[in-house]
Amino acid sequence: MTTARRDTYTPETLLSVAVRVFNERGYDGTSMEHLSKAAGISKSSIYHHVSGKEELLRRAVSRALDGLFGILDEPGATRGRALERVEYVTRRTVEVLMAELPYVTLLLRVRGNTRTERWAMERRRDFDHRVADLLKAAAADGDLRADLDTRLATRLLFGMVNSLVEWYRPQVGTGYDRQQVADAVVRLAFDGLRTAP
Amino acid sequence: MTTARRDTYTPETLLSVAVRVFNERGYDGTSMEHLSKAAGISKSSIYHHVSGKEELLRRAVSRALDGLFGILDEPGATRGRALERVEYVTRRTVEVLMAELPYVTLLLRVRGNTRTERWAMERRRDFDHRVADLLKAAAADGDLRADLDTRLATRLLFGMVNSLVEWYRPQVGTGYDRQQVADAVVRLAFDGLRTAP
Repeated sequence: MTTARRDTYTPETLLSVAVRVFNERGYDGTSMEHLSKAAGISKSSIYHHVSGKEELLRRAVSRALDGLFGILDEPGATRGRALERVEYVTRRTVEVLMAELPYVTLLLRVRGNTRTERWAMERRRDFDHRVADLLKAAAADGDLRADLDTRLATRLLFGMVNSLVEWYRPQVGTGYDRQQVADAVVRLAFDGLRTAP
Repeated sequence: MTTARRDTYTPETLLSVAVRVFNERGYDGTSMEHLSKAAGISKSSIYHHVSGKEELLRRAVSRALDGLFGILDEPGATRGRALERVEYVTRRTVEVLMAELPYVTLLLRVRGNTRTERWAMERRRDFDHRVADLLKAAAADGDLRADLDTRLATRLLFGMVNSLVEWYRPQVGTGYDRQQVADAVVRLAFDGLRTAP
């Protein structure tokens, strides 16, 4: 029975358990003991799959980062006017955040005590800079309000997008569907709450 | 010397030390020992001022909540068109958040394990509901975009405003001044990033 159970474990299922525990207890506050209990397998079984909790963290945040950076290579992000590209990237970022919610949540909570955490924060900043560059290009085209500082606008835009990890829950039948949330973010960010004059 | 030092301590200075430690270690992770070390006074001196760490938490989040609820009684929040009132409340919320940064940060991070934490979360939700009601009134006046769900818009608006606790730092001479940040939030939230057509 124990063997059977261990055999059903894949690196993928172990990863999803680890991400849940990291998000609940914080990465720093999670021990291999916690992971072993949550997964229902022995520590040595975990070591059969990964070198330790830092490898699990690296795999988890990589999944979030791959999702986010993947957006920047999509045609919608590389062709057309800068304003349309930044709108596209905003919408897709919201979609990836909702699709990979626990992974992006972990990425956003990482605080930089280990090399892997610092690497994740660095990559996350890279992504923010790529979007800030798009916003700058849109401003240079005259498509963004001239009275808004681009760097500040980028921070506020990401503040709004990233706040989703605090309240969006994907339960079927309750709350909002992904399309509705993505639409609302893009509309609020680019056109504002006020009725068009 | 010890006596002199203890005498200089007021409930106010003790509170500001406690809030800093709560924000660094989390409220759950903070012991009276940590507070005693950070304040440089004995635990019994702390008990001379307060009944324990829960009282410090209650005082700290009360300061944030008093600041926020105070806004709702100001003339700008009670007179005029709903849209103007909600713009006013948004701007003032940003200002209070920046003026009381550590206190509002603590309020936003509280997670509900003790009675005081649950009370703080309840009051915070009350505040959000009051602002949501204002947004609803503005929508009923036809002043908000009809294609945005009001509850979802409220969440996104607060998501953007509350994100300030993650990156806004009031160092003089660096970053943004308060006026600039408050202007940017109101402009982005109500008029959007896009150049007016």
